Amino acid sequence: MLKYQQIADEIEQYIEERGLQQGHKLPVLEEWIARFDASKSTLTKALELLERKGVIFQVRGSGIFVRRHKRKGYISLTSNQGFKKDLEGFKLSSKVLELDVRKPTREAASNLNLTVEDDVYYVKRVRYIYEQTLCLEESYFNKSIVTYLNREIVEESVFEYVKGGLGLKVGFSDQYMHVDKLNAEEAGHLGLQKGDPKFVMESIFYLTNGQPFDFSKVTYNYVQSQFFIQAGG
Amino acid sequence: MLKYQQIADEIEQYIEERGLQQGHKLPVLEEWIARFDASKSTLTKALELLERKGVIFQVRGSGIFVRRHKRKGYISLTSNQGFKKDLEGFKLSSKVLELDVRKPTREAASNLNLTVEDDVYYVKRVRYIYEQTLCLEESYFNKSIVTYLNREIVEESVFEYVKGGLGLKVGFSDQYMHVDKLNAEEAGHLGLQKGDPKFVMESIFYLTNGQPFDFSKVTYNYVQSQFFIQAGG
Repeated sequence: MLKYQQIADEIEQYIEERGLQQGHKLPVLEEWIARFDASKSTLTKALELLERKGVIFQVRGSGIFVRRHKRKGYISLTSNQGFKKDLEGFKLSSKVLELDVRKPTREAASNLNLTVEDDVYYVKRVRYIYEQTLCLEESYFNKSIVTYLNREIVEESVFEYVKGGLGLKVGFSDQYMHVDKLNAEEAGHLGLQKGDPKFVMESIFYLTNGQPFDFSKVTYNYVQSQFFIQAGG
Repeated sequence: MLKYQQIADEIEQYIEERGLQQGHKLPVLEEWIARFDASKSTLTKALELLERKGVIFQVRGSGIFVRRHKRKGYISLTSNQGFKKDLEGFKLSSKVLELDVRKPTREAASNLNLTVEDDVYYVKRVRYIYEQTLCLEESYFNKSIVTYLNREIVEESVFEYVKGGLGLKVGFSDQYMHVDKLNAEEAGHLGLQKGDPKFVMESIFYLTNGQPFDFSKVTYNYVQSQFFIQAGG
């Protein structure tokens, strides 16, 4: 972790520990420089990062302020942390329905820049929040990048393994969303009725070098899920 | 517009004019510096802005690359441009159902940091895409900030007027989303059936000084609407 990232983390912690609310004025730049004994450019980068993350906002000539959204239990769509992070403190679990190496569907191949002859790891899971179904998730991992997966890994977090175990660097993602009606199979997995609403999110995750490695299609239980975005800034 | 923003716009235009695809390698930093006759720090800021906007990605030691999503007609949830911008080239129109000054609901007041005794402009519109209903939109504007609205303005873009006409600076937004079933009134406005899926987006828009000025609740026609997010980077 770079120095400015570490400082950004500490400032975020400062805000959380004190339970500071939206609009609360924070110490000025000079005070942070003194506190961390760091350069102005390092602090500027740390504050810019926090602004992008939606933790603070800066008003020219006026100061640095806490930015905070008011609602809890919403899944953030702009963090690349996976929703385990957003739902911290909530009781989550997974049931693995399928895990194997196979040829991708045409759709998965196209999103991963593969041919239908290449190998992918296919994972199908149901996720639960407090024993209620949260979502049905199908993922395709490019096997030449994510070279190994097993049941233990996919019951926990594949992303933790990709970063920690394989040492890969997760970069950005594209997320496509639409709303439709559940078919019978999806309704069965989610414990809902055929024809009930569904929120479908298709994500393509890229490494920092721009290579797509994961194409996932997640069908959410509309009763259990709410989403959140912090934009602009 | 600051110089680095102007340069960022020109680089984006460079990519669009040439129809460059995802992964296409762009000229290196030094070439951009020479081309724009600008400082290294200005170019660095311009490139960082483009990275945040999801237009490029940078790979350390390797270069600058075009980032591009493949699907058209998706509404971006991370731009604060309003969807007129995302659906450029699509035929959009609005029908104004209600426009008046009133006291806000408790919910609207709370989201705008107002009391239920303060005044708001209330606007209710149906938006159309190629004569099909796209969404039903209810907005509450803090009247002490958005001091004047009329039918002509709300038939076009309130945001253009807020920025251009009133000279206000739009900063960031919080967006909350959930999926549910349409009630009879909503279904009527959207030309769907009661009980059909709905995608509801509640947004709070803030000025750059952190003051909320617009609370909007948009109910989308699930058949017509698809959403897109570029995250991380």
